[in-house]
Amino acid sequence: MLEELKKKVLKDNLDLVKNKLVLFTWGNVSQIDRESGLIVIKPSGVEYDEMTADDMVVVDLEGKVVEGHYRPSSDTPTHIEFYKAFPEVGGVTHTHSTFATAWAQAGRSIPFYGTTHADYFYGDIPCARALTEEEILGEYEKNTGLAIIEKFRTNNIDPTAVPGVLIKSHGVFAFGKDGANSVYNATVIEEVAKMATITEAVNPSVVRADQFMMDKHYNRKHGKNAYYGQSKH
Amino acid sequence: MLEELKKKVLKDNLDLVKNKLVLFTWGNVSQIDRESGLIVIKPSGVEYDEMTADDMVVVDLEGKVVEGHYRPSSDTPTHIEFYKAFPEVGGVTHTHSTFATAWAQAGRSIPFYGTTHADYFYGDIPCARALTEEEILGEYEKNTGLAIIEKFRTNNIDPTAVPGVLIKSHGVFAFGKDGANSVYNATVIEEVAKMATITEAVNPSVVRADQFMMDKHYNRKHGKNAYYGQSKH
Amino acid sequence: MLEELKKKVLKDNLDLVKNKLVLFTWGNVSQIDRESGLIVIKPSGVEYDEMTADDMVVVDLEGKVVEGHYRPSSDTPTHIEFYKAFPEVGGVTHTHSTFATAWAQAGRSIPFYGTTHADYFYGDIPCARALTEEEILGEYEKNTGLAIIEKFRTNNIDPTAVPGVLIKSHGVFAFGKDGANSVYNATVIEEVAKMATITEAVNPSVVRADQFMMDKHYNRKHGKNAYYGQSKH
Amino acid sequence: MLEELKKKVLKDNLDLVKNKLVLFTWGNVSQIDRESGLIVIKPSGVEYDEMTADDMVVVDLEGKVVEGHYRPSSDTPTHIEFYKAFPEVGGVTHTHSTFATAWAQAGRSIPFYGTTHADYFYGDIPCARALTEEEILGEYEKNTGLAIIEKFRTNNIDPTAVPGVLIKSHGVFAFGKDGANSVYNATVIEEVAKMATITEAVNPSVVRADQFMMDKHYNRKHGKNAYYGQSKH
Repeated sequence: MLEELKKKVLKDNLDLVKNKLVLFTWGNVSQIDRESGLIVIKPSGVEYDEMTADDMVVVDLEGKVVEGHYRPSSDTPTHIEFYKAFPEVGGVTHTHSTFATAWAQAGRSIPFYGTTHADYFYGDIPCARALTEEEILGEYEKNTGLAIIEKFRTNNIDPTAVPGVLIKSHGVFAFGKDGANSVYNATVIEEVAKMATITEAVNPSVVRADQFMMDKHYNRKHGKNAYYGQSKH
Repeated sequence: MLEELKKKVLKDNLDLVKNKLVLFTWGNVSQIDRESGLIVIKPSGVEYDEMTADDMVVVDLEGKVVEGHYRPSSDTPTHIEFYKAFPEVGGVTHTHSTFATAWAQAGRSIPFYGTTHADYFYGDIPCARALTEEEILGEYEKNTGLAIIEKFRTNNIDPTAVPGVLIKSHGVFAFGKDGANSVYNATVIEEVAKMATITEAVNPSVVRADQFMMDKHYNRKHGKNAYYGQSKH
Repeated sequence: MLEELKKKVLKDNLDLVKNKLVLFTWGNVSQIDRESGLIVIKPSGVEYDEMTADDMVVVDLEGKVVEGHYRPSSDTPTHIEFYKAFPEVGGVTHTHSTFATAWAQAGRSIPFYGTTHADYFYGDIPCARALTEEEILGEYEKNTGLAIIEKFRTNNIDPTAVPGVLIKSHGVFAFGKDGANSVYNATVIEEVAKMATITEAVNPSVVRADQFMMDKHYNRKHGKNAYYGQSKH
Repeated sequence: MLEELKKKVLKDNLDLVKNKLVLFTWGNVSQIDRESGLIVIKPSGVEYDEMTADDMVVVDLEGKVVEGHYRPSSDTPTHIEFYKAFPEVGGVTHTHSTFATAWAQAGRSIPFYGTTHADYFYGDIPCARALTEEEILGEYEKNTGLAIIEKFRTNNIDPTAVPGVLIKSHGVFAFGKDGANSVYNATVIEEVAKMATITEAVNPSVVRADQFMMDKHYNRKHGKNAYYGQSKH
């Protein structure tokens, strides 16, 4: 079942290691097959260098394991909320990558300081609020997803234009059209977080870059007038 | 004697290099065999890339070398104090890993800023006081252990719930159920120290994360209601 | 056409990865053949580990693709402006390398703090102004080149003596006598930016190093009295 | 001539790359053969990955090339001054390693903050003054050595107890009983500089560690009562 997708999702999870976004088992990637409504996700707490495609777990949008000999990632309920709320999202990555997690711990959105950011994120990378005690004592992972969705709804953020988010005192979630694309965006978030850290160290009174630069750079790579890369037709 | 354990302790010591926790010979790992009361530990000042399982040294809880052609690590008396004071500790790691040692030099405990921390440490990672001149001129390494144990006793800290500690102006000790687990915890300490450094740089007025988040995350991974990873029965 | 040059420019682009100056496809190198007036440049948005010499694109000084099955880098118009304005420049590198880009985002020139800097840059590494909305909405990449050239003209900077520049809210351009030399200079800029960041952290009131030290070090490596390296006759 | 020593000095120079102390050709190691008074040193500006033992240059204490098909490192006159002033020094390393060079650029000695430092340096790692214009216009490299020697003489520093030094606005020199030992000490300086940078970031009001700790740690590894490592008899 979904054998090709399992291979892809395995590769995406291994790319977390290759891109230096995770220590040990501290991250996970999933991808949804929209036709069947099934999600392929990393098993919980299994070492990356021992995982095979067969170890990937298939769950449905209710969180029921449909196939797999392992438990799915404990963050599965968070992934599911994203797939339910954002029909345009096809892949989700969760990491505790160092610099981005530090910004999450600091409780700050990552401001738009330059074109590296604007090439992939049309706006600041938001930081969602910490969960309340009630939310944490309840369905914690599900509520993590809901708090992030609330942030996107309240601030009218489009998860395809801002495909990633921090959550206070925790870490990073990135979105993408598929699993690989969400890993790509998670990698960008870490690099942009590192650059922003150094930017503020070097100039503590730095302000956001100009909005028209963001418009330009984002549209260079996205939308129907994009002219970066090779045309796909 | 204890041949299997020597192989394991060799691997644990080599993992210090793999996990980028040591320069040269600046670290050591030991594990105790509780049945015989014997400890296997790295030899002193031997290069990691030349060490074999046979070079590991076996000492008893009085510090007497029971087997081995090398002197044991000069930090052996510190390890021994931990094994005597903490019956639940099965492995000990000592490092001078960069960020954690900087916090030790700064004389600060590492505050709980996020879930990465809470997943492994139920409370701040404490910083024990510097030794007095008398303690240093006396049995220095033994007294290092005693000062750390004093910190745990005085503050009522459980070394299985907070499996690691800094010691002022010196470095890091990490505990575990075995040698490998103590290396794991030493690796977490370094990453958490790096994240905390960046967190404070990005938000100098950051405060500790919520206690109920610590409760939740720690218990997700530990204790009888843990649900992270694969069940072991 | 220009087969040897394509191989060289491929290697130069791959050196961006080797020297850790780029993530993904975030950089490009070109070299001009002054005799024919033709430029060899990286294709746009192609993965480094899949690129072959054949994928390099040949463009003329009007930006017309003369040979190649891919679109040239979207930054080609910037490269072209440099080749037109600076006859002594034979190679151009563009990167978003982490520390140098942070200085660009901070909008600061990198001050001369030591001999590492002076060995390659005779003066601060300048930061050109951000583009205006009009310049961005117009021929953006061309105007990026023009803003940088304006900076060099206005401040009377010689691009062979100061072979690199930051541009506000964006990244780095480096020059060289050929592609490889421009990659070398881009690598120096990143290292000098990192050193300057740490220098200011360690001593917030640091001032520029002495001008006579700059004179000495630059001339040790450049000009007819240079005595660093092996004589070339 | 001195074929064994050339092989060793080649290896020492390659270790600069392995230990991540140099970019490109930015460093050099030499060792003296005290019997003949001849020094083996790296050639100037030759790529590390192309160097062979045969490329090493033999010079005498007057700086005359005795053997070698290349020019010696342009820093040779600095090395020579150390060998003349410090009979106990057998090897010298020069680097522009990132953190240590930043401290040199900041014009600060590296304070003793912990045992990592005290294990190898009995006192702060000093920063020698910048050269005057006259010294720079004169015999620059020789005067660099003299300014450092002046620092050691004036402050009564023993280069075997403090086997390394920064020089303002420039970089690092490390000493050792042979070339390999000087590379080791240069590696320690970089790590200690990094730790000190983070220590001050985490605790801006940190003060030096206790002198009796320095006494203890240094003597654990050095002198006739040393007990770290394996006994050499």
